[in-house]
Amino acid sequence: MTRALILGGGGMIGQKLAHRLATGELKGYPDLDVTLCDRGFPAPGAPGRQITGSVTDAGLLTKLAAQRFDVIFHLAAIVSGEAEADFDKGWQVNMMSMWHLLEALRAEHLKTSGAYVPRLVFTSSIAVFGGPYPDKIDDEFLSAPQTSYGAQKAACELMLSDFSRKGFVDGLSLRLPTICVRPGKPNLAASSFFSGIIREPLNGEQAILPVPDTVRHWHASPKSATGFLCHAAALDTDLLEGRRALNLPGFSCTVAEQIEALRRIAGQDAVDRIQARPDPDIMRIVQGWPRNFAPARAIDLGFKAESSFEEIIETYIADDLAR
Amino acid sequence: MTRALILGGGGMIGQKLAHRLATGELKGYPDLDVTLCDRGFPAPGAPGRQITGSVTDAGLLTKLAAQRFDVIFHLAAIVSGEAEADFDKGWQVNMMSMWHLLEALRAEHLKTSGAYVPRLVFTSSIAVFGGPYPDKIDDEFLSAPQTSYGAQKAACELMLSDFSRKGFVDGLSLRLPTICVRPGKPNLAASSFFSGIIREPLNGEQAILPVPDTVRHWHASPKSATGFLCHAAALDTDLLEGRRALNLPGFSCTVAEQIEALRRIAGQDAVDRIQARPDPDIMRIVQGWPRNFAPARAIDLGFKAESSFEEIIETYIADDLAR
Repeated sequence: MTRALILGGGGMIGQKLAHRLATGELKGYPDLDVTLCDRGFPAPGAPGRQITGSVTDAGLLTKLAAQRFDVIFHLAAIVSGEAEADFDKGWQVNMMSMWHLLEALRAEHLKTSGAYVPRLVFTSSIAVFGGPYPDKIDDEFLSAPQTSYGAQKAACELMLSDFSRKGFVDGLSLRLPTICVRPGKPNLAASSFFSGIIREPLNGEQAILPVPDTVRHWHASPKSATGFLCHAAALDTDLLEGRRALNLPGFSCTVAEQIEALRRIAGQDAVDRIQARPDPDIMRIVQGWPRNFAPARAIDLGFKAESSFEEIIETYIADDLAR
Repeated sequence: MTRALILGGGGMIGQKLAHRLATGELKGYPDLDVTLCDRGFPAPGAPGRQITGSVTDAGLLTKLAAQRFDVIFHLAAIVSGEAEADFDKGWQVNMMSMWHLLEALRAEHLKTSGAYVPRLVFTSSIAVFGGPYPDKIDDEFLSAPQTSYGAQKAACELMLSDFSRKGFVDGLSLRLPTICVRPGKPNLAASSFFSGIIREPLNGEQAILPVPDTVRHWHASPKSATGFLCHAAALDTDLLEGRRALNLPGFSCTVAEQIEALRRIAGQDAVDRIQARPDPDIMRIVQGWPRNFAPARAIDLGFKAESSFEEIIETYIADDLAR
């Protein structure tokens, strides 16, 4: 038996990952037993043992590390909007939790005379980048974040890389595209509308578009996100050649192209439920975001995402709309 | 009166900076009163009030922050070799100290309802970069450190940048070239020999060269280093446009060119005191280092270094050899 821990296991991606792991498709981890840790869980939740607690509790991380999981998915974070509004909370949840986790895992590594080296898959973000941007961001583009969220994720990448180089853990940082279409309610992320303008119309509800439809952005579905995580858990990390942060594949399109895809799938009625209501604050934040990538390394390493926005919408309809 | 604090004020650069500040040449800081903090100080030391303590003592940093210095130079660090050998100490001294310092300064900022915003000048390093390198590293080259020292410095840059973006401090990270010729004894840095092969022969002593003389590297004198720090303390940080880490100017040359410069200044007798004794460990580390830069931003911003290695040697002879 092998064992997996999902920090942030109560969140949208954490729950979908737990469902996916329960299907037994994670290569290299036979008879996988899954533990989820989060401040709370939806009911009914995904399969797996539930531990309720916060990653800001260093004592909890020490106890979890002592269980010596084979693979740890660290998804726990507060989103960009909240990290910008609550500076303290952002650095504690998004950065210091990684430090305490790594220190706790290193302690287990040392106790086992180096035998214990868990795979640690961390969800970083394209927010580690800051403008000015080229048309397409390649794998050599510098990380110069212009938000607290981005700075916290980038600092985690540095720590995870150095602890991995030293052999204490075997880590990867996955710079996720904006995940779209998110099921459920809008969240505090400034990117929330990218999902809202698809999700709400498909559910017969009104949606607000706070930016011009010329805005271009970089997307992947929740299904791609859990696919990235599973692929990273099974990857031969020698192939990373010491650069353990990866820009992941996604699909780049404008909001107009998103809306056109919605029209083709759900008709003009759906599109008519989108109301333009410009919001200068959101526009200012979104203008600082990357628009397109050329993620050659991740593609070479076998990471896969959607190749059209229609495909992203169809994934939402198949996986989430019916529920 | 304005007040400056030098963390790491007992070290080589800290002492030279204190001497330089005592001459009153720091623009924008009239009647400068200088405080030095370090674990120990040379005797006789540079002018300034001395506080003995470690930057790993968060309580001390809180007390220092409460004094609301106008400008703080954070030079305190353990060097690359020691950070690689002592993982714990490296992260505590080189990274966590910055976190506690920033948190303490932010607390003062909040106590003064935002009135207190100290200038904070941090000595980062070209160790934030990792190979493979282009022939010349430009200002857009990514930070992907391959040492603990480099990862710690890069993490500090991210924190300093975000605390500055939020207006809690007004910071700059200076990615110093390898400082050469260092006076005094060799230290634990793997780069120590770059100074040793000049300093020891000029003092009539034998020097060890552990790498082939084809090795190219990036140098600036201690005098340039204190010049960078003074220039950064007085710089209009609006000019940085949110990218607060700077690659600084220096001089790129091979070890053979260093030795040729020594020959022109001090003759063949001096050169004959250098003994080649290859050290595979040092060679492996040095092969991972940058060789040359095109630091256009810093040059545009008025930072200046030497334009020949002879000039670097002459600086050592004028400033340090006589003592």
